[in-house]
Amino acid sequence: MPETTAPKKNWGRWGADDERGALNLIDDTKRASDYEVLRTGKIYSLGLPIQRSGVPVFEYRGPAQRLTLASQTDGAFWESFGEAMDIPTDGAGGNEDLLIFGTHSGTHLDALCHVYHDDHMYNGFETSTFGSYGGAARNSIHQVDGVAGRAVMLDVAAHLGVPWLDPMFRITDDVLEEVREAQGTSIRPGDILLVRTGWIDSFYDSLANGTELSAAQAGIDQSAVDFIDRYDIALVGSDNGAVECLPCDETLLSVHVKLLVHRGINLLEFADLRGMAADGVHECFLVIAPMKVVGGTGSPVNPIAIA
Amino acid sequence: MPETTAPKKNWGRWGADDERGALNLIDDTKRASDYEVLRTGKIYSLGLPIQRSGVPVFEYRGPAQRLTLASQTDGAFWESFGEAMDIPTDGAGGNEDLLIFGTHSGTHLDALCHVYHDDHMYNGFETSTFGSYGGAARNSIHQVDGVAGRAVMLDVAAHLGVPWLDPMFRITDDVLEEVREAQGTSIRPGDILLVRTGWIDSFYDSLANGTELSAAQAGIDQSAVDFIDRYDIALVGSDNGAVECLPCDETLLSVHVKLLVHRGINLLEFADLRGMAADGVHECFLVIAPMKVVGGTGSPVNPIAIA
Amino acid sequence: MPETTAPKKNWGRWGADDERGALNLIDDTKRASDYEVLRTGKIYSLGLPIQRSGVPVFEYRGPAQRLTLASQTDGAFWESFGEAMDIPTDGAGGNEDLLIFGTHSGTHLDALCHVYHDDHMYNGFETSTFGSYGGAARNSIHQVDGVAGRAVMLDVAAHLGVPWLDPMFRITDDVLEEVREAQGTSIRPGDILLVRTGWIDSFYDSLANGTELSAAQAGIDQSAVDFIDRYDIALVGSDNGAVECLPCDETLLSVHVKLLVHRGINLLEFADLRGMAADGVHECFLVIAPMKVVGGTGSPVNPIAIA
Amino acid sequence: MPETTAPKKNWGRWGADDERGALNLIDDTKRASDYEVLRTGKIYSLGLPIQRSGVPVFEYRGPAQRLTLASQTDGAFWESFGEAMDIPTDGAGGNEDLLIFGTHSGTHLDALCHVYHDDHMYNGFETSTFGSYGGAARNSIHQVDGVAGRAVMLDVAAHLGVPWLDPMFRITDDVLEEVREAQGTSIRPGDILLVRTGWIDSFYDSLANGTELSAAQAGIDQSAVDFIDRYDIALVGSDNGAVECLPCDETLLSVHVKLLVHRGINLLEFADLRGMAADGVHECFLVIAPMKVVGGTGSPVNPIAIA
Repeated sequence: MPETTAPKKNWGRWGADDERGALNLIDDTKRASDYEVLRTGKIYSLGLPIQRSGVPVFEYRGPAQRLTLASQTDGAFWESFGEAMDIPTDGAGGNEDLLIFGTHSGTHLDALCHVYHDDHMYNGFETSTFGSYGGAARNSIHQVDGVAGRAVMLDVAAHLGVPWLDPMFRITDDVLEEVREAQGTSIRPGDILLVRTGWIDSFYDSLANGTELSAAQAGIDQSAVDFIDRYDIALVGSDNGAVECLPCDETLLSVHVKLLVHRGINLLEFADLRGMAADGVHECFLVIAPMKVVGGTGSPVNPIAIA
Repeated sequence: MPETTAPKKNWGRWGADDERGALNLIDDTKRASDYEVLRTGKIYSLGLPIQRSGVPVFEYRGPAQRLTLASQTDGAFWESFGEAMDIPTDGAGGNEDLLIFGTHSGTHLDALCHVYHDDHMYNGFETSTFGSYGGAARNSIHQVDGVAGRAVMLDVAAHLGVPWLDPMFRITDDVLEEVREAQGTSIRPGDILLVRTGWIDSFYDSLANGTELSAAQAGIDQSAVDFIDRYDIALVGSDNGAVECLPCDETLLSVHVKLLVHRGINLLEFADLRGMAADGVHECFLVIAPMKVVGGTGSPVNPIAIA
Repeated sequence: MPETTAPKKNWGRWGADDERGALNLIDDTKRASDYEVLRTGKIYSLGLPIQRSGVPVFEYRGPAQRLTLASQTDGAFWESFGEAMDIPTDGAGGNEDLLIFGTHSGTHLDALCHVYHDDHMYNGFETSTFGSYGGAARNSIHQVDGVAGRAVMLDVAAHLGVPWLDPMFRITDDVLEEVREAQGTSIRPGDILLVRTGWIDSFYDSLANGTELSAAQAGIDQSAVDFIDRYDIALVGSDNGAVECLPCDETLLSVHVKLLVHRGINLLEFADLRGMAADGVHECFLVIAPMKVVGGTGSPVNPIAIA
Repeated sequence: MPETTAPKKNWGRWGADDERGALNLIDDTKRASDYEVLRTGKIYSLGLPIQRSGVPVFEYRGPAQRLTLASQTDGAFWESFGEAMDIPTDGAGGNEDLLIFGTHSGTHLDALCHVYHDDHMYNGFETSTFGSYGGAARNSIHQVDGVAGRAVMLDVAAHLGVPWLDPMFRITDDVLEEVREAQGTSIRPGDILLVRTGWIDSFYDSLANGTELSAAQAGIDQSAVDFIDRYDIALVGSDNGAVECLPCDETLLSVHVKLLVHRGINLLEFADLRGMAADGVHECFLVIAPMKVVGGTGSPVNPIAIA
């Protein structure tokens, strides 16, 4: 395992038992200083809508399904609650639903257990700690708890003057640095990095025009990991499906391995950055609040960018 | 319908087509002024963990289930992705899961379509606009988009010097006012109101000690709606299962009807307020980010309180 | 409702409370006489495999999903069972799964509540007896209990010398009679009628060759209902998706309305008749055993034809 | 592995690639001779109803859930089908549902992959052939296809003159032989063996009377495997939850290991034998038709006993 023993990785950096990885970079002191980005009071919801169709989905995960659990058709059911409490229903009742969906569909956050490499996950935990019934005994999504801190967006598509990048475009360290400089965006240790490729724009465009979408997606390549190391980023998000470019750079999930496994950096995928891009907002206070699924490999999220 | 035509209700207040209700009170200007509560940099995740057991659940909704979609046992499956991209897997693979759960289980936000009364929902939309397949055509949870603003917590249990309120305790307008004054908490129009009953403390206590939990729950009664009107609250949350007291006050879901249906006020239920209570934090900047389920009646949330 | 009051329909034929419809035609005496078709000992499973892809599915119902509940990765989980029983596990453990699927996907049986017309279901029960939470209070699939009796197959495709019928081909009363005569097949009151269109053959052909499948499907039209009346059929099955032709004949679900609603005749869809066709078997003893889902609108089935 | 190499086991008996085990004993010739048990025309559905509560369930598998996919509230949805076909809906519409349930809940058939021992399944396939995503590559439930043949019921409870056996009662080889003789029941190679303990009677009794049900269950012990070997049984079913006694005899799942793993004998659990018992029917022609879930570890079934 030459790579997994390389000096850049964060195994042990926050202790042998750590399961939160680079999120440790966002401590209260850092967060309190991040408040300075708060100015206008405007917020941006970065979560895509959740529905059966018309949203990006990798087919093997199945579509999200909202199913009605109870509704206005269940009169006797609602009355039974009134009876149990010995009070009249007085015309009241409710609608409830139940959701079924893959945790890596739509806008979602990858847990540190999501990817393994050479039989290990982040911080050296063995892949075999994952069980079908209980899920991840280590690096579960619930360890994230909540993320809140300064985020910077590098709008690669806007910088290059295109609505979206060519599917085969690879975002390198150099490209990121060039965009950062052109935008005049400063980055501090522990900041969240958002990379905009315009993929979601291309998705809705293809939906509207019935054109076929490429399976390839622009995204960061392995060289971009140097950028992430240089600025000591806490979390990386993008508006594409895997943060990294598809096809992956050189080996399967190579950037996931370097970020999730080696560095303990959670990845935010399918983040809808259109609103921020439209307003030219390149820094914000970002809140990401995953469902605290014990043993979970990820969670749908609706990140709220606050400006 | 004498009540539904009463002057206090908010139907039409934000236009005949409005589906966001009292959340309209939190505009950018209000939010920008709310930033002043941000001081220490500490955050509190108010979401309960999501797991099959050991969490509060109304049985008819079924338990939440995390199921493994793919894991380290799917070697050939992961290799097929590498093959499709014409790159080696090089020892990489992944874990993924799929969730099944009721949207009103665990810590969750009620959509304005969640409750109806006399065949109508908030803003006069007819109950029949809800369909089994598509869910709520009106007042769906996705209309919430995202909530971010000042929240105040009235810690009724702490004020009364008990770990949790007696299950039959009703929190009246007078009680809320008394706690507010004792805490010295100011409330501004459009603030979020959190009411702590200590119910989650009692839940974990009963779990730890194997004692039986009462089906009754302390919560606000109908008089407390006057308090909410007086301060023009944007959203109400509590650490119990229904915000309102159980059994409900006089009629089924009477407080839900007055808040959700008449006033368009979303309700946050099973909010874990223990951390804030332990620190004596009574005001914070609160971010609630529901899954934007189109047609949905509610969403699990992990509210992040930022101090 | 001129049609629903027509003399041919079976409302009331088996009593005002009946929920089993034409299955009442298969009583023990009839069934005992049906045993005479049993000869060779060969059986045919008419159920299609259940898997995520490579099977016919109407997209709005979502794909069937088999998810792993527990497996060999859950060592500690299986050991906990041994510990609870105070016995060693001795190297034993298990695999379990959980299924999610629409009841009208794959090979399935329609319950009599599946379709309504002019606010009524079979036997005059009101459509409003169906509730989201409890499902069908009347005509639920569990009322079927079990079906076992003589079935005849009219192999329209074979008779016409084609592997499958043209998608726009309508199977009329005359066509059925012509095939019956050509095959020399006798039909008795209470028999089950299977109509082979070859659609499943065309499905697998399109899958194998990557050709596009028409949304239209050959099937019986409204005139064929006269055939069904004339022979007093107990249940109708076909190897297509709706028994009736698609597009439907004249009005939406016109044949479903006439069979399910007016006559109380359950429909078996996507029955894999290839094996029987290959052997030229035109009569058999057929067993259909739906899951007895209380309130259910249908059930996946694996009908067993015994020759 | 002394036991797994013992002479009695069936590994290799039907070839090195066999995945159907003892079901191979029921060939067409045997089945045709089994027809002689068919006499009265009466049938018994051995499947329990499927509903959220009031049915036996091992809690970790979660309750079965029937959810409404579409109903009479979806007027516009049904109209869209009419529009797509360019025909009027004419008052027609439908109800559909979606099921979620563990394959080992309620009346179900265990696949040969359900249990493993010392890293192997039936016929020597390695436990590692089971993957989270695809399930069982070997010994999947779909290999069963369909079961139809002579079954004998040994009614242990009736023989002992009790409504149900004591939960700690172990059904030994001797007990089975004693019941067989007392009943005067002949058994032929390849027959299906049903063992009645009365457990389902005790379940409904406890439900009706609110009494607590023991976690222990009467069932066959390891000595009974000799009985099964002596008569060369094709499949074993019972009205309890695991066929074998609970707690298991000596080691975890010891009888499952001997039957499923060593002998390739599928197990039918929670079979409702009350109807047959009430009529004193001790032999029948039994049809078991599992859902052909590719990769599945088992399937809910509604076995139909034909007399």
